[in-house]
Amino acid sequence: MQFELTREFLDKLRVHIDKKEEAAAFDMVKDLHPADIADIYDELEMNEAQFLHVMLDEDKAADVFVELEDDDRERFIESLPSEFIAKQLIDKMDSDDAADVIGDLSEQKQEEVISYIQDLDLAGDIVDLLNYDENTAGGLMAKELITVNENWNMTTCLKEMRKQATEVDEIYYVYVVDDNNILKGTLSLKKMLLASANARIKNIQNTEVISVKTDTKSEEVANIMEKYNLVALPVVDAIGRLAGRITIDDVVDVMREEAERDYQLVSGITQDVEHSDSAWLLTRARIPWLFIGLFGGIIGALVIGNYEYDLGLYPQMAFFIPLIAAMGGNVGVQSSSIIVQALATNSLGFESIGKKLSKELFVASINGIILSSVIFTYNFFLSDSFALTITVSSALFAVIIFASLFGTFVPMLLDRFKIDPALATGPFITTVNDIMGLFLYLMIGRLFFSIF
Amino acid sequence: MQFELTREFLDKLRVHIDKKEEAAAFDMVKDLHPADIADIYDELEMNEAQFLHVMLDEDKAADVFVELEDDDRERFIESLPSEFIAKQLIDKMDSDDAADVIGDLSEQKQEEVISYIQDLDLAGDIVDLLNYDENTAGGLMAKELITVNENWNMTTCLKEMRKQATEVDEIYYVYVVDDNNILKGTLSLKKMLLASANARIKNIQNTEVISVKTDTKSEEVANIMEKYNLVALPVVDAIGRLAGRITIDDVVDVMREEAERDYQLVSGITQDVEHSDSAWLLTRARIPWLFIGLFGGIIGALVIGNYEYDLGLYPQMAFFIPLIAAMGGNVGVQSSSIIVQALATNSLGFESIGKKLSKELFVASINGIILSSVIFTYNFFLSDSFALTITVSSALFAVIIFASLFGTFVPMLLDRFKIDPALATGPFITTVNDIMGLFLYLMIGRLFFSIF
Repeated sequence: MQFELTREFLDKLRVHIDKKEEAAAFDMVKDLHPADIADIYDELEMNEAQFLHVMLDEDKAADVFVELEDDDRERFIESLPSEFIAKQLIDKMDSDDAADVIGDLSEQKQEEVISYIQDLDLAGDIVDLLNYDENTAGGLMAKELITVNENWNMTTCLKEMRKQATEVDEIYYVYVVDDNNILKGTLSLKKMLLASANARIKNIQNTEVISVKTDTKSEEVANIMEKYNLVALPVVDAIGRLAGRITIDDVVDVMREEAERDYQLVSGITQDVEHSDSAWLLTRARIPWLFIGLFGGIIGALVIGNYEYDLGLYPQMAFFIPLIAAMGGNVGVQSSSIIVQALATNSLGFESIGKKLSKELFVASINGIILSSVIFTYNFFLSDSFALTITVSSALFAVIIFASLFGTFVPMLLDRFKIDPALATGPFITTVNDIMGLFLYLMIGRLFFSIF
Repeated sequence: MQFELTREFLDKLRVHIDKKEEAAAFDMVKDLHPADIADIYDELEMNEAQFLHVMLDEDKAADVFVELEDDDRERFIESLPSEFIAKQLIDKMDSDDAADVIGDLSEQKQEEVISYIQDLDLAGDIVDLLNYDENTAGGLMAKELITVNENWNMTTCLKEMRKQATEVDEIYYVYVVDDNNILKGTLSLKKMLLASANARIKNIQNTEVISVKTDTKSEEVANIMEKYNLVALPVVDAIGRLAGRITIDDVVDVMREEAERDYQLVSGITQDVEHSDSAWLLTRARIPWLFIGLFGGIIGALVIGNYEYDLGLYPQMAFFIPLIAAMGGNVGVQSSSIIVQALATNSLGFESIGKKLSKELFVASINGIILSSVIFTYNFFLSDSFALTITVSSALFAVIIFASLFGTFVPMLLDRFKIDPALATGPFITTVNDIMGLFLYLMIGRLFFSIF
């Protein structure tokens, strides 16, 4: 039922484009959904995509443009004159999409494009929207919505809705306001269907309406819409006047980006990159963590260097260096990622930090006892040094305890200071735990080798 | 505007519950949204939550029940008799929520509960829905929807819609079917507002409707709804008959779970756990990766053991063991997580595997050259052994190349064999790269120490 992009399709399309067979190329894409056409552009060269784009009708061309990924869109828009952007693209868009597109332009080009917009209402809306930080409800919302006055009856309401409906793409709710445009409630399609023509809006509206302020953070908007299962959320200004509405599709993008960002941080990638990005971008996103890892490795070398004499006496100590370092890193990442997820979904609960740490200590102790016993047994039977046997298992236990507590504590601390706790899941925790593990191991080793 | 759960609120509520002050306790929760009440239950003991629950009116009690987290709901439901579950809870739910709740019960209890359901339509819908795998469109969909016949005019359509609307919570689209219940199109609220009373549905419906089959996988449903910005998606059976609809709020949950699962896999956690879960569950979710790490550490010890003689001669070789092992793990996780994300969002593109690997090779080479030069410079000035200097930097370069290619290749291979590629991001890649890194390092070391 849906279109699925295949290599065969792309190859065939490219042949038509290369041969400048306009009709044949257009035939292949003309019935596709704008989102599918945007996916095709993503695989094509700039000039190939432009060859197709000029053949699309204006509305579809604008829709495809909205669906493009940010980097494709930027490449595209640079090649277009301001007048064309305004008249052929922006004029066909909803205010939120239009503001997003214009917001990516240079300040000078922004002014130029806005001056060319024909629909003055839209131009005004865009200028309003550009004032909001893009990571807030104001930056997510669209100005297009249907509002009715609470004092109207259903007949007036339907007449007004018909007038307003031409401006709005999708209607999920109708918003009810008072004479001062203060948000009072919502009216669902269901209520409207079941209401009589004389019913006053005031009496049939749902007054338990959930809304956010223009400066509410995007993540909170996403959490609210997810928690209360909303498809659209009204946005009000500081005194409660209806300013716009956010639809779930925009918030789904916010959620996806947030999840990807956390995922990338825990994987040690510092920027939002995709496999299809340039090698240069990929390198830049990956090298910062590697530098931290390298730096940690150098500190590790200095720590071990401090114990060179001991290692010369008991070279078998070196065998278990990777085990201890790896386990510290692993345990730390586990602990911190559990805390980061809990913080992201607001599900950390209300116990004190002390209680959380003692629970973590308990879990770490169980893991530590199990794993230390295994390595103790292994070395007891297979190593000829009892000092080594007891060193490795004690150090493993110590490093598991330390890494758990440290991995739990640091993200909570960052969060307390309003720093993104996900920063603690990647390089920082692993590197500190690697080094700390080595230090504990060698110190314990020196102790036990002097005893046994 | 929204309720925010605080420790003060909880403490106060608990005092009322402890003192059995029903009215005071009820006052605190009676105006809250069901999702907020569910959050409160999550923080309370079982008997405290029950104390509140019996005071809620039936509809709200059912709504709260739907909003509960799975594990809270299971604890709750075990304490309730089948008749109560059927009459007080299930009868007030939508079919998809009802099927989810009943699907978690034992087979015997399922039958019991279903036999007590008063609304026979609902009971039939539930039995139908229970047949579908919960990870497919059939398992996500609800049976409640509004359908109109393509041959009706708007007047008949509105009359029929009024009849059906009482059964449906939220209406986003009206589905248009033919006489055989085959899905033909959708009708948006906007179209209905603008249509004349005599307009035939056939002529005003949107026929470019995107739908999925009952056996479409949940992840694909989520990708489709996200890509095409849909709030509701119709589900059809094998011959195109309308079977149900999926709403975006259920799919948002699917997306969240998917993202959490990938996040947990890359953090080395094997089960869906939260910080608030029991210590036992947390231990069980964390220990498998730690065992793999331990096993990898033992193999690492054996690899190093093989080079004990060389280490005895050049004990400084031991200093850089953690650096090499850590970098192998880091680079591997970066590479594999970029591929896993690309696979999850269908954005891997259409180049051949060979082309993808050569791009990765290029990125790895840049990273490798930069990092190796840094460590070369460091050792050149600060170490007295040129053999060590050249060994560490060559081994670092080699391990970065190996780990990149391996981290890219393995998830693609798993995906080709329909195994979840995210399995490759955690323990497997890190451990293999750790060991491989050690092996390369010691081998290269033996070579260069024999030359210089």
